[in-house]
Amino acid sequence: VTELADALFVDPAMARIWSAEQSVRCMLAFEAALAHAEAQAGILPLAAAEAISAACEQDHFDAPSLFREAAISGTPVIPLIRMLEDRVAGGASGYVHYGATSQDVLDTALALQMREGIDLLVGRTFALAATCAKLAEQHRQTLMVGRTLLQQAAPITFGLKAARWLSLALRQTRRLRELREGISVVQFGGATGTLAALGGAGPQVTELLATQLGLAVPDLPWHAERDRVAAVATGLGIVAAAAAKIAQDIVLLAQTEIGEVSEARAEGKGVSSALPQKRNPVDAIAVRAAAQLAIGSVPAALGAMIQEHERAAGAWQAEWALLPDLFRFTSGALNRLVAAVEGLEIHPDRMRDNLEHFGGLALSEALAMALTPGMGRHEAQRAAREIANRAAATGVNLREAAMHDKRVRRALPPNAIDQIFDPVNYLGSTDLYIDRALEDFRTLRSKMVTL
Amino acid sequence: VTELADALFVDPAMARIWSAEQSVRCMLAFEAALAHAEAQAGILPLAAAEAISAACEQDHFDAPSLFREAAISGTPVIPLIRMLEDRVAGGASGYVHYGATSQDVLDTALALQMREGIDLLVGRTFALAATCAKLAEQHRQTLMVGRTLLQQAAPITFGLKAARWLSLALRQTRRLRELREGISVVQFGGATGTLAALGGAGPQVTELLATQLGLAVPDLPWHAERDRVAAVATGLGIVAAAAAKIAQDIVLLAQTEIGEVSEARAEGKGVSSALPQKRNPVDAIAVRAAAQLAIGSVPAALGAMIQEHERAAGAWQAEWALLPDLFRFTSGALNRLVAAVEGLEIHPDRMRDNLEHFGGLALSEALAMALTPGMGRHEAQRAAREIANRAAATGVNLREAAMHDKRVRRALPPNAIDQIFDPVNYLGSTDLYIDRALEDFRTLRSKMVTL
Amino acid sequence: VTELADALFVDPAMARIWSAEQSVRCMLAFEAALAHAEAQAGILPLAAAEAISAACEQDHFDAPSLFREAAISGTPVIPLIRMLEDRVAGGASGYVHYGATSQDVLDTALALQMREGIDLLVGRTFALAATCAKLAEQHRQTLMVGRTLLQQAAPITFGLKAARWLSLALRQTRRLRELREGISVVQFGGATGTLAALGGAGPQVTELLATQLGLAVPDLPWHAERDRVAAVATGLGIVAAAAAKIAQDIVLLAQTEIGEVSEARAEGKGVSSALPQKRNPVDAIAVRAAAQLAIGSVPAALGAMIQEHERAAGAWQAEWALLPDLFRFTSGALNRLVAAVEGLEIHPDRMRDNLEHFGGLALSEALAMALTPGMGRHEAQRAAREIANRAAATGVNLREAAMHDKRVRRALPPNAIDQIFDPVNYLGSTDLYIDRALEDFRTLRSKMVTL
Amino acid sequence: VTELADALFVDPAMARIWSAEQSVRCMLAFEAALAHAEAQAGILPLAAAEAISAACEQDHFDAPSLFREAAISGTPVIPLIRMLEDRVAGGASGYVHYGATSQDVLDTALALQMREGIDLLVGRTFALAATCAKLAEQHRQTLMVGRTLLQQAAPITFGLKAARWLSLALRQTRRLRELREGISVVQFGGATGTLAALGGAGPQVTELLATQLGLAVPDLPWHAERDRVAAVATGLGIVAAAAAKIAQDIVLLAQTEIGEVSEARAEGKGVSSALPQKRNPVDAIAVRAAAQLAIGSVPAALGAMIQEHERAAGAWQAEWALLPDLFRFTSGALNRLVAAVEGLEIHPDRMRDNLEHFGGLALSEALAMALTPGMGRHEAQRAAREIANRAAATGVNLREAAMHDKRVRRALPPNAIDQIFDPVNYLGSTDLYIDRALEDFRTLRSKMVTL
Repeated sequence: VTELADALFVDPAMARIWSAEQSVRCMLAFEAALAHAEAQAGILPLAAAEAISAACEQDHFDAPSLFREAAISGTPVIPLIRMLEDRVAGGASGYVHYGATSQDVLDTALALQMREGIDLLVGRTFALAATCAKLAEQHRQTLMVGRTLLQQAAPITFGLKAARWLSLALRQTRRLRELREGISVVQFGGATGTLAALGGAGPQVTELLATQLGLAVPDLPWHAERDRVAAVATGLGIVAAAAAKIAQDIVLLAQTEIGEVSEARAEGKGVSSALPQKRNPVDAIAVRAAAQLAIGSVPAALGAMIQEHERAAGAWQAEWALLPDLFRFTSGALNRLVAAVEGLEIHPDRMRDNLEHFGGLALSEALAMALTPGMGRHEAQRAAREIANRAAATGVNLREAAMHDKRVRRALPPNAIDQIFDPVNYLGSTDLYIDRALEDFRTLRSKMVTL
Repeated sequence: VTELADALFVDPAMARIWSAEQSVRCMLAFEAALAHAEAQAGILPLAAAEAISAACEQDHFDAPSLFREAAISGTPVIPLIRMLEDRVAGGASGYVHYGATSQDVLDTALALQMREGIDLLVGRTFALAATCAKLAEQHRQTLMVGRTLLQQAAPITFGLKAARWLSLALRQTRRLRELREGISVVQFGGATGTLAALGGAGPQVTELLATQLGLAVPDLPWHAERDRVAAVATGLGIVAAAAAKIAQDIVLLAQTEIGEVSEARAEGKGVSSALPQKRNPVDAIAVRAAAQLAIGSVPAALGAMIQEHERAAGAWQAEWALLPDLFRFTSGALNRLVAAVEGLEIHPDRMRDNLEHFGGLALSEALAMALTPGMGRHEAQRAAREIANRAAATGVNLREAAMHDKRVRRALPPNAIDQIFDPVNYLGSTDLYIDRALEDFRTLRSKMVTL
Repeated sequence: VTELADALFVDPAMARIWSAEQSVRCMLAFEAALAHAEAQAGILPLAAAEAISAACEQDHFDAPSLFREAAISGTPVIPLIRMLEDRVAGGASGYVHYGATSQDVLDTALALQMREGIDLLVGRTFALAATCAKLAEQHRQTLMVGRTLLQQAAPITFGLKAARWLSLALRQTRRLRELREGISVVQFGGATGTLAALGGAGPQVTELLATQLGLAVPDLPWHAERDRVAAVATGLGIVAAAAAKIAQDIVLLAQTEIGEVSEARAEGKGVSSALPQKRNPVDAIAVRAAAQLAIGSVPAALGAMIQEHERAAGAWQAEWALLPDLFRFTSGALNRLVAAVEGLEIHPDRMRDNLEHFGGLALSEALAMALTPGMGRHEAQRAAREIANRAAATGVNLREAAMHDKRVRRALPPNAIDQIFDPVNYLGSTDLYIDRALEDFRTLRSKMVTL
Repeated sequence: VTELADALFVDPAMARIWSAEQSVRCMLAFEAALAHAEAQAGILPLAAAEAISAACEQDHFDAPSLFREAAISGTPVIPLIRMLEDRVAGGASGYVHYGATSQDVLDTALALQMREGIDLLVGRTFALAATCAKLAEQHRQTLMVGRTLLQQAAPITFGLKAARWLSLALRQTRRLRELREGISVVQFGGATGTLAALGGAGPQVTELLATQLGLAVPDLPWHAERDRVAAVATGLGIVAAAAAKIAQDIVLLAQTEIGEVSEARAEGKGVSSALPQKRNPVDAIAVRAAAQLAIGSVPAALGAMIQEHERAAGAWQAEWALLPDLFRFTSGALNRLVAAVEGLEIHPDRMRDNLEHFGGLALSEALAMALTPGMGRHEAQRAAREIANRAAATGVNLREAAMHDKRVRRALPPNAIDQIFDPVNYLGSTDLYIDRALEDFRTLRSKMVTL
């Protein structure tokens, strides 16, 4: 990722979680916890554990040079341990990394970083939900046209659209909380996943190590069976795609000719280097780009599951680049989306205009349903279609065209026609759906608070 | 998919679930259930519902011609309803598809097919687990070398490898059961997701409809928010990749020079058109190909989440091809994998040979650990590395090289050396891990039975 | 691919090229040509070649049962050769497939099918070009607004848009013609790519075989180095994405609120099961779906390049499904796109309306450029931006707002203002670009004819 | 990309080409060349062009703060122009970026960077070719076994394998040179691709601008038709996959049990944190990981072709991250591969051992071919298969088993049997193929020199 992409598509808070410093800190957290666990299990002298733990102060570690050496050894753990041993005085240095293998360090550090990353994403999706909830409530009755296949279909309210976004955001919050559960597991298996170097003490050390790090103990080491990691990767892909869906709605609603929403104004935002009148959406476009970049990392994450024997020769290593990117872009997409939705200017007048301007054709289903009791669905659909076509062809409003249709006049009293063509009367379960989404939001909010 | 790919990579039972006939059957199940639900809610006369339901006999429907017409209308629901109306005598025809939209039919039918497909996959992954469980038990003590980065590392047993496959398979069974839960929801929203055509009766009809079909009622219609579908798609991608991991292990173990497993013999299986001696793996290779094809469908499924407004103009329609393929290839991969693992010939002698033949180098960690108490980890590692290098350079066995090393003789009594170089003594928690996986298998088996 | 997806997204002519029958025919073409080549080279008796060639009559072959057997042997070549040998009377049967290996048959058949498939695609892209050329000429002066980031930007003509589509289509035609060149090569290497079974006659037989099939001779056999195949796959991905770009423009222009184009009307086309007024785009949507499905096959095709040693264990076999799909969906996308563009109804009045309706803001760059000579680019941009903002805020037309601006009146005479706000005067090189695209079309057309 | 991935999988020389500094430098090169071109065309005073050009000294520009501002404006061109204007004294500032739009700057800068990037890759692939050529020549006669489906098949030489790598590398060099041609085009279209702001001078300025930058002039601006960019992206994907194929061969040949190659030794290279005996391949594994990361960017690049109208709202912007990554990982893969191949230790003794150790079964085709003249292909294949099976079952060598077979003794004189079982006699066209690849190398080398 270049600096430009970093600035536009990445969440700085997430970038910190996957920074070199934080990666080293997590690896050292493993080494420190391991030493303590082994001391508790009687494998190391307590003093050695203390010495190792004291040396695991990230400030001493030069991450860039460590990573440069990693290019030679093929893993950053080799130089890390060498540096750590150098820092541990005397005999204790022999107890560094005792019984562990590189992958134990890297995968457990990965689990810690993924957990931290997911926590951030939970916050981001919930902030999105909160913003959508506000819109759903405020615009519960703001009429607009629903569009299918990008054609006007029938009335909805903007509150319902926001409620659908809300519901989508809430499901992502829940999805992330479940993923957090699944990935909060220690990896500790030694060279080939048997913990042979610890003799019979493996399980006990694993328990103590996991407790130290606040992680769960898996049934078996998972070095070469990476469905847990892939579940996180694909889950983030879904979250990113959900963000892109909302962003796409915004971009489409913001089209000059539709003009139902605009992004918040800000000095220098969305201006053009050529066009004086331009006020481009910026955040929603960044969401779409970041989401595409996130989604693009998913297939490689699935491919990375196909590991050879007890450790992969390439697939595992690819994770070191793709997982951080996936987290950074997903979070970047959410971050920009929260900004976009929070600042969104809603234009109810344009919504109403668009609903009515195009001949009121979006109420032709309402007309057909009103005619159905009298003439059967078949005839009613045919009549409505003919009236709609006539309206479109002659440029008159659907309502007017309907009033001039004999079948309609025969079937319906004039005041019924007024009723039909008031979109407020054709909203079905809109209100109920908004209520449900808001109720779900409140439920999750109370859970989040007590967490 | 061509006929060749169908024959090689697709599970016939899964192909039936996604056949034209079954698709039409599921769509008609929706229409029949809808009519009944609406009759119960007092919207239709009961007789009309009965007439519609009677007409929903798939045998009358010519799926191929229906799909040909779909190319013109853009959806198979338009010709389906026309055909259905033709079949419903008299006035009842006006009640066909009452208040619903095409997407309601297609998405609910999709949910039914996905549920059925997942049930089949649950069976397939559990059959895989059962087979792996047998191997884990039988080969609990069958020594082999563990390999990391495709290099010999340290001893394991084949039972442990099978236990890891087992644990992976069990997690996939559970994953699928959760996905089943998530996707067993009705889609019913009418033209734009408000159920306006049903006035206030929408929620009640939705409940009745869902009950008829054995599906759950979602908070809101989900036509344009397809994270549920994407979760199934990515979940299947993970299942397919899990299958590919196991298949890859088999292919690698079956290499002529390693020769630790072979696929079951069968007349004409794995022969070559040029090479008389060949006995190629066939099933495991088909697994790898099918899994790649399944994984390849995942990104498009994520992309399909990015739907415009209330119904997408392309992304949704792409699902009609990619979801069936994803199910068929994933199931194909599992099907062939079950065959491969069930018929697997294990060659314990070759496993033992490979463990010993290469100088016993796979026990150098054991040597290092044995030396550690006496000389510290640092010196012990260095000594073991030097001895291993000497052994490799001079072509003698590691054990012999160790016995000739002064440091070793000083540090360890001769009988300790015997102990070190018996791989049985360097298996750590192998047994425990096998027990845990088997225990997990029995737990899930009892749940599956009571289901 | 299900029957539904077949009907909607696949080109029937392309489906025939990849049918079971055609696959078998191409494999038999290889075997017949090989026999003749070997007879010419003195390896077989001429009579044997004649007997084999006579037996290579596809009508005798039961493709479905052949493919079923392929599931056991892992390749369709084993049963094919057995069937072929059965059909060849007497001693000649011993000369069937002499010196060849399965992959020679399958890859050469693949080359033949890809060549045929590319020929079809060349025709499809050129038909698209021809249709776009007509539109570019007809609508050379049909004013519309250009849109960047989905915001109105500055005027263009629909002819220019069509010329850009044309230019894109022409480049794809050329791309396909180059791909045809690259893939029209025989694969013939025997068991491991040395042609050892033919002793020293390998190169001569290769030449004769290639001549028989109208293919070129590659430097080396390419069984395990599949960049040629990947180039075709990625090239088709580009062609499909190009189709999707044009289809997306159509879908966006067809939005109810924009209404600048509609797809051709046809009985039952684009109707809705719920909405009487609907006239959905159908073809362009099918293009988008088919293109996504095609693009989705590309990564697996790249992955398939990573083959083990002299023949891959999975990656190669996956090609058997993904390449046919890639061809079928790409051709399906083009096929539907040609239909969409050919039948496209253009609405110049709506184009003009949209250009003017939104306050004429799309001419603010024209205003800024007109002011630049007098006040410098900086001031001119600022003035134009302020006037545009004022116009937008007060709801007056940009022209009117400009006429009331002191700076403008000072800088420009009234008739200059008329000039500025006539979009015809702000089309720059539009005409030239249309000419260039049409000239390029005529150049390629003359080449295509002489081909 | 994290620092770790940067260190392991990225080519530093390529990272420089896509650095913030270099991006800004290329954008400023556009602005300077534009000013000169417009001065030559009489649009700007020459003094203004000189002033602008003088200001385009990258040293003055603070890339990081520029990119931070880009997050607000949505493009780095807005702040860049503002900074540039600030630096240009007096009235000339009004001529900065005259008649251009952001995308002109970004896309032309992209073309310049891609050209530079491709030049580097051409060098990398050719260096790979040169190294492979050396191996092909040196190991022309180094016998090894060819492997299909990871099973021993028939003899080849390591020189042939290297010749196939060479041929693959040469094709990639040529591919890159063609891509260079295709992407070396200026983008200059103004706000909507008409160059309206330049009146009639657009084409002339375009010519002059292109000449300044050493780029070609495209028929039409290509802002929204990005097949040229996608061709580069997919081309790089092919190059990366080609690298991965070679790396995979190396990793497989380096397996402990096969041991036919090892990577060069270096202090600290390929050691394990747990296993003293380990000497892991490092470079080839990095190639595989980097190639997967590169390939993973391809689908998003194809998706980025699907741009809305005259400029995309997300797809284009995603290119800013994915193209640099694609170049960096592809080059990283090649860089590490050149290191791996250059340092490769070849073990001819292990190759010979593997060819013979497994019963000489790899010569069963040779046996079958030798028997064919006497007993027909059918019988010969059957006899060879039976003998091979007997050899495998009884553990005797194929040669010995053959000598004890009556049919063989009847058909062949004893000295013929010696001939058959000497693999040197079963290499077919191996030598010729090596010659061809080397000849092709020399041809391209002479072209590269004269370039």
